[in-house]
Amino acid sequence: MTEQPIQTMTGAEALVSTLADHGVTACFANPGTSEMHLVTALDHEPRIKSTLCLFEGVATGAADGHARVTGAPAMTLLHLGAGYLNGGANIHNARRAWTPMVNVIGDHAVPHQRFDAPLASDVVGMAGPNSRWIKSADTVAQAGELAAQAWEASFGPEPGPVSLILPADTAWLEGGKPGATRARPSLRAPDPARIDAAAAAVKSASKPVIIINGTALTEAGLAQAARVKAAGIRVLTDTFFPRQARGAGRFVPDRMQYFAEGAMADLEGSDLMLIAGTQVPVAFFAYPGKPSVLVPEGCAPMVIGGPDTDSAAILAALADALGTKEAAPVAELDVPGAPTGALNAAAIGASIARHMPEGCFVSDDGVSNGLPSFLMTQRARPHDWMMLTGGAIGQGMPLALGASLAAPDRKTLCITGDGAGMYTNQALWSMAREGANVVNVVFVNHSYRILNIELARTGAGNPGPAAQELLGLGHPEIDWVKLSEAQGVPAANATTAEEFDAALERAFAADGPRLIAAHVPAR
Amino acid sequence: MTEQPIQTMTGAEALVSTLADHGVTACFANPGTSEMHLVTALDHEPRIKSTLCLFEGVATGAADGHARVTGAPAMTLLHLGAGYLNGGANIHNARRAWTPMVNVIGDHAVPHQRFDAPLASDVVGMAGPNSRWIKSADTVAQAGELAAQAWEASFGPEPGPVSLILPADTAWLEGGKPGATRARPSLRAPDPARIDAAAAAVKSASKPVIIINGTALTEAGLAQAARVKAAGIRVLTDTFFPRQARGAGRFVPDRMQYFAEGAMADLEGSDLMLIAGTQVPVAFFAYPGKPSVLVPEGCAPMVIGGPDTDSAAILAALADALGTKEAAPVAELDVPGAPTGALNAAAIGASIARHMPEGCFVSDDGVSNGLPSFLMTQRARPHDWMMLTGGAIGQGMPLALGASLAAPDRKTLCITGDGAGMYTNQALWSMAREGANVVNVVFVNHSYRILNIELARTGAGNPGPAAQELLGLGHPEIDWVKLSEAQGVPAANATTAEEFDAALERAFAADGPRLIAAHVPAR
Repeated sequence: MTEQPIQTMTGAEALVSTLADHGVTACFANPGTSEMHLVTALDHEPRIKSTLCLFEGVATGAADGHARVTGAPAMTLLHLGAGYLNGGANIHNARRAWTPMVNVIGDHAVPHQRFDAPLASDVVGMAGPNSRWIKSADTVAQAGELAAQAWEASFGPEPGPVSLILPADTAWLEGGKPGATRARPSLRAPDPARIDAAAAAVKSASKPVIIINGTALTEAGLAQAARVKAAGIRVLTDTFFPRQARGAGRFVPDRMQYFAEGAMADLEGSDLMLIAGTQVPVAFFAYPGKPSVLVPEGCAPMVIGGPDTDSAAILAALADALGTKEAAPVAELDVPGAPTGALNAAAIGASIARHMPEGCFVSDDGVSNGLPSFLMTQRARPHDWMMLTGGAIGQGMPLALGASLAAPDRKTLCITGDGAGMYTNQALWSMAREGANVVNVVFVNHSYRILNIELARTGAGNPGPAAQELLGLGHPEIDWVKLSEAQGVPAANATTAEEFDAALERAFAADGPRLIAAHVPAR
Repeated sequence: MTEQPIQTMTGAEALVSTLADHGVTACFANPGTSEMHLVTALDHEPRIKSTLCLFEGVATGAADGHARVTGAPAMTLLHLGAGYLNGGANIHNARRAWTPMVNVIGDHAVPHQRFDAPLASDVVGMAGPNSRWIKSADTVAQAGELAAQAWEASFGPEPGPVSLILPADTAWLEGGKPGATRARPSLRAPDPARIDAAAAAVKSASKPVIIINGTALTEAGLAQAARVKAAGIRVLTDTFFPRQARGAGRFVPDRMQYFAEGAMADLEGSDLMLIAGTQVPVAFFAYPGKPSVLVPEGCAPMVIGGPDTDSAAILAALADALGTKEAAPVAELDVPGAPTGALNAAAIGASIARHMPEGCFVSDDGVSNGLPSFLMTQRARPHDWMMLTGGAIGQGMPLALGASLAAPDRKTLCITGDGAGMYTNQALWSMAREGANVVNVVFVNHSYRILNIELARTGAGNPGPAAQELLGLGHPEIDWVKLSEAQGVPAANATTAEEFDAALERAFAADGPRLIAAHVPAR
């Protein structure tokens, strides 16, 4: 008999090593005093790379981007309830993207919690609404097992962010044990009865549509979508989706329009709406006298499978049930010529379509200027497009950071409005530190331009002096080149299409992050 | 009989005008689509000045600073649950400062809420824990009345942030009515029985102390504290307090030490601890084997009145009950000479004591470098010092912004760490836009220096490569001058005591905001 050496492990070490055992490779962190033992546990875990973020919203957005690339959760390290709140908006966005994410939230030592120290707060109360799963590891023996549970829960039934609270004494005490290893959960397989029902409904419909999201937007899923299209069903994606394979060689689905009146006009006459991998579409906001649910009158929505279901498999089964042998055509490569003249969103889109390399990941927080870039890259080199799904602006640069660290050999392009970019501008510093291959394009129009549009749409009236003050970003104009250089990211201004095109070409050719301040008209 | 014109009012107008009727003069805002009618309502309300903040954490920190100066709540305008989360950490800090604040959170129109649109979230769930009061104005008839209730509730019993949720349809519908006018609530008067009990306990104690916060730290309150001191009671403030009158002519209380072991050594032998306007002191964090409650063994804590009670009145009543005729001496003006040589926290403190003008407000988010400035200004010109009470760093610049807008004819000094400053650096832009008279001093040590200290104190071990990566802000070093100039605030570097002293003198002499990057050693 050989004697095993007695191994001791703190709760922090049990948590970290259990996540590593389950394949977690990245931790986006902004630690504080209550997380010091987690920091040293990460020091001893070579399988997880830690990235410091100077604001928690950067950490959670980066974890989202990392997971959208790898398909598996990254961890974050957040400092008590206050750290959670700082990271909360991008956790909200991740929930709306069905992104698996393990948020590890440090807390006061259990015996300290009843004294209501200054940083104490009701973490479960605050974090609960945006957590698919939330527990506090109140004893050291639980830490590893709860880490395994948290990892598993981040995959579903509906994937999303989970919260694992780690009191400081659980972190520092010895007695941690690794959690039992879980198999990676899969999305649900399609329900054959619903597939048959959908196929039957299609046959009696005159103008059927299907709304897709999730795995249907992978390269393999879109190949099935092309078959569904060939069977006579119009294929639309959600307006905003976590990730879509695009460009040459991929089928090009339509996309739901953002504004409710546009979407309803676009869908007019549709008499059957199938849903695969998402929810029944609703308007982003309500407006006086306008519809909330984006389903035409007389059109029956039929959910084949929601976000918990493998929508690529739905499309394959549906095409099979319809006996489809053919597939709609895919996009052919079409790289536009160099734009000239005034710089605007369309010129920027043309340059992006020209220079974006194969395999690029795009993080789109472009708000009012992103659409032309999206449309003009339909036939660009193959790439993946990632969108802001939850509407909380300030996701673009953090998401790009995380995506780039997950795919360091590829390029990541971030397109963001200036208003959105300011929310989490600290992401630039982490990009510089990590040498992340991110090209940031900031649409600089010195305005929350979308709000000027929305002010009219909501019927709130013409902006007076106070409203103009609240919707404009001029006075003073932000110098994005300085803001970027201050954080270590080389940057350039572009005020003409020619300047932008040259700057973008240079930025994609460079190693490490770059930023281009693209000066576009405010109206 | 004259006929009154029929006045119509939206819910948004009812809310805004009701707050204005109650004396609210400032709105710190980051609006979105669901708040457009609030924006136009603010347009028509000349009694409230709106200030745009490029991140919600700036808005809530500024509302805190405004209220600490005026003693009454400012309003914020936040965009749904995501906007609340972004502003949440500084709302946490405000709760810990007992600062009245009315957070107005826009939400989806009530009929839209059941469709789970992308920006929908459980606002009550997320905002509840840090709200003294929270309600949603789900009908237009309620909007004005709930605004009045919210304003009243922000004063107590314990003052703090309240949350008023305004669905978009409540905002846009006609039928709003002003809320009934409330009188401003007062803090509780001291309980005479408790005063008598405290006075009796003092007489039989050999080494009594009193811990004070709240109104006891106003100029009038400190005059009473000086009487209590003359009666033989040691007077200490909480480690962190919302606001203290300081400098020449004011009594100088001791201050509870930050680190638990230091505080316990300092209090050794005390056999009676009275509490006025605060809670029984607890350690900021727990550490292995160290105490949580900062009360020596054998010392009885006696709460005369908590944060809901007028602590200045407690001190007056206690001094009367003890028959005190005298008062301890107050600080005499003592302005140090110009510091020379290497730049460090002590040299910075000397320059601040030299140049800080009478009536200055200080916003202290200085973390590991703030203490020398605090100590060296004890006998400076009369001023008010405002601290980070909740431990969520990133409050300094937003708080200074709000304080300055509440007292535009005075100077505001912000001292902040570089780690803390990065959290909410967007406050600089609002300072520039408003021409706020804020002098920002950033302690640039390229490090979360406090965490290097804490790593050792928690026994988490020596930092390895990952830990060093997570606690250091170098690689790349942030260029604070560029970061500040990018947002319109003129800035300068200082690397010697002489440079800093000259830069600070110039900054206080200037109109509008300035920033000094004060390069201090990391260890």
